[in-house]
Amino acid sequence: MTETRHRATDPSRADGPPGLVGTLDREGGFARPRATGRDAPEESGAGTLLHRARAAVDPRLRAAVDSLPAGLRRVARHHFGWREADGSASGGGSGKAIRPALVLASAEALGGGEARESAVPAAVAVELVHNFTLLHDDVMDRDTTRRHRPTAWTVFGDADAILAGDALQALAQRLLTADSHPVSRVAAVRLADCVIELCAGQQADTAMERRDPREVTLDETLAMAEAKTGALLGCACALGALYTGATEEDVDALDAFGRGAGLAFQLIDDVIGIWGDPRRTGKPAGADLAARKKSLPVVAALTSGTPAGRELAESYGRPHRQEEDLEHMASLVERAGGRDWAQAQAADRMARAVDELSRAVPVPEAADGLLALAEFVTRRDI
Amino acid sequence: MTETRHRATDPSRADGPPGLVGTLDREGGFARPRATGRDAPEESGAGTLLHRARAAVDPRLRAAVDSLPAGLRRVARHHFGWREADGSASGGGSGKAIRPALVLASAEALGGGEARESAVPAAVAVELVHNFTLLHDDVMDRDTTRRHRPTAWTVFGDADAILAGDALQALAQRLLTADSHPVSRVAAVRLADCVIELCAGQQADTAMERRDPREVTLDETLAMAEAKTGALLGCACALGALYTGATEEDVDALDAFGRGAGLAFQLIDDVIGIWGDPRRTGKPAGADLAARKKSLPVVAALTSGTPAGRELAESYGRPHRQEEDLEHMASLVERAGGRDWAQAQAADRMARAVDELSRAVPVPEAADGLLALAEFVTRRDI
Repeated sequence: MTETRHRATDPSRADGPPGLVGTLDREGGFARPRATGRDAPEESGAGTLLHRARAAVDPRLRAAVDSLPAGLRRVARHHFGWREADGSASGGGSGKAIRPALVLASAEALGGGEARESAVPAAVAVELVHNFTLLHDDVMDRDTTRRHRPTAWTVFGDADAILAGDALQALAQRLLTADSHPVSRVAAVRLADCVIELCAGQQADTAMERRDPREVTLDETLAMAEAKTGALLGCACALGALYTGATEEDVDALDAFGRGAGLAFQLIDDVIGIWGDPRRTGKPAGADLAARKKSLPVVAALTSGTPAGRELAESYGRPHRQEEDLEHMASLVERAGGRDWAQAQAADRMARAVDELSRAVPVPEAADGLLALAEFVTRRDI
Repeated sequence: MTETRHRATDPSRADGPPGLVGTLDREGGFARPRATGRDAPEESGAGTLLHRARAAVDPRLRAAVDSLPAGLRRVARHHFGWREADGSASGGGSGKAIRPALVLASAEALGGGEARESAVPAAVAVELVHNFTLLHDDVMDRDTTRRHRPTAWTVFGDADAILAGDALQALAQRLLTADSHPVSRVAAVRLADCVIELCAGQQADTAMERRDPREVTLDETLAMAEAKTGALLGCACALGALYTGATEEDVDALDAFGRGAGLAFQLIDDVIGIWGDPRRTGKPAGADLAARKKSLPVVAALTSGTPAGRELAESYGRPHRQEEDLEHMASLVERAGGRDWAQAQAADRMARAVDELSRAVPVPEAADGLLALAEFVTRRDI
């Protein structure tokens, strides 16, 4: 339901794998690149926006979680990284608040500071939905760590993780419907539609992983990634726009902007999953290939009709063995054009996203925050 | 998140286990007992109300499910019993629509036919929430059959069943928030609160089953049953009342009525789980005891401080073996007072529920539908 992969958050990864962002920049994917130092992103516009979003959202997010019955609260607090399983304080973080930041930046871009303030409930609701999907995805995917901590199901069991996720979805809807803002009802409907799309995306992903690699098409992989990763980023931007009283056209443009940025993120994350530096990604080199993950560059290679693509398909049809040459497999993806395709697609999606944004927000300065966040999401895990 | 047990629906069980309803009647649990033939409940008021509720709710329920993306729709249609896994038509039924019937009967009791019509979206939303919890409960409890059909997770896998449940929760909220009725927003908040309570009830139940039988208290077992079974029946009645523009006091009274009826159902269902006729329950005699289920009569016996209760605790501390004398265990529960307590509690809860109802609906005829449904839920599985 969320980004296909969650890599460990390593501060040293802040600038992404060398060359990748450069490639995008060269291809002009990021319009109006900001003068932010790559080595100090926290001082950049994105860093400030994320910090401000976390500060604006956290009190209401914690209040919402605190309102849960004790048993569910315990699981949720652990998941958010606020408490250990025994209830003691935790040093963990609650993630980077990229989605709330998109809600607030979108509201500010179209409606200024007051609109930004009014959109806080929507930002909290989006963050609750994101975390509900993380709780459930971890159960389904049997992922054992998240944000450097054991996942909820490994600590509390499947049932508690499923139930805490269910409760967070209910909390998200409760927060929006209880909000007195005139658009909160429309926002709640849009968020519910988004949840359904996230579910469809996660379902497509799990189904795809079970299928014969030669039968998966690039179009369906892109559609899956858009539903799983793009939909909530799009919804976040759309909700922020809604809270400014924007026209339906502008709301849809902001949605398209967020979706495009989300898909660009997924494409780049998939590239990092194959060629990323293990010291930066926190995962062994070629882990995605060893796991036979049908990531976007891989499917592009498999469907390329090239000899390298056919050789890759043969490898993907066999189970991974210890002695397998993952470097050779990565070079097959590259020779089949998977890497270039993914990078070009990411640049193209981002360019189209920026076009959508400039339609809805014609004043360049007003769009700066959203652009900084979009650039940020394509440079690290979100 | 729902009733602790789901027995096979056996038409021959329509009159409940012999003597049980009689006991309740004798104890005066059911005020104003209706002149319904026990052997022909479908001709009774309850049967008519359930039939009418199904007819009113089904078109919108099916439309809501049809609006889901194909993969989720397939799982949901199978779960509702409308389609087989391959998409072909199914002869299965979609359950007895008791919760939608409570919504509609509550609206009619306080506001007449027009209010009943307006409350249909709330009835559909409650049915969607109920089915979302069934999908998830079956995954957590590893239940393999429901409504005489294989459960979703056994057919489609855990991930699809979890995702279909998530989508049904979103659909329920979407339906209420998109409804233009002036109270739909308040109703959506109330439904979200109910979902959280259902989650807490299911969590308490799964946690309780893992605990030492000597450490479980009767109060917490009753609280668990109220959250797990009573909350949604209460919410159904409350939503129906809301749609008539009833006062907060009356809405709360209807909630209390539904909760009481739900708890009475659970108490009686637990009695049936021990002493019910296997030919009627569809489960082997003593199955709950063999499974060491901490049902209400069992916990009453375990906490009775009687020699029989202590002997039962010893048996519950040992794993079940083939040669175990389940009849003897049942007699221990009985001698420890568990059976009498449960029957008296059920009668008491129902009497208090009826009191609540008569406060909000003073005209006896107007309350007839709700009373018929309450009597019905305590006579068969819901």
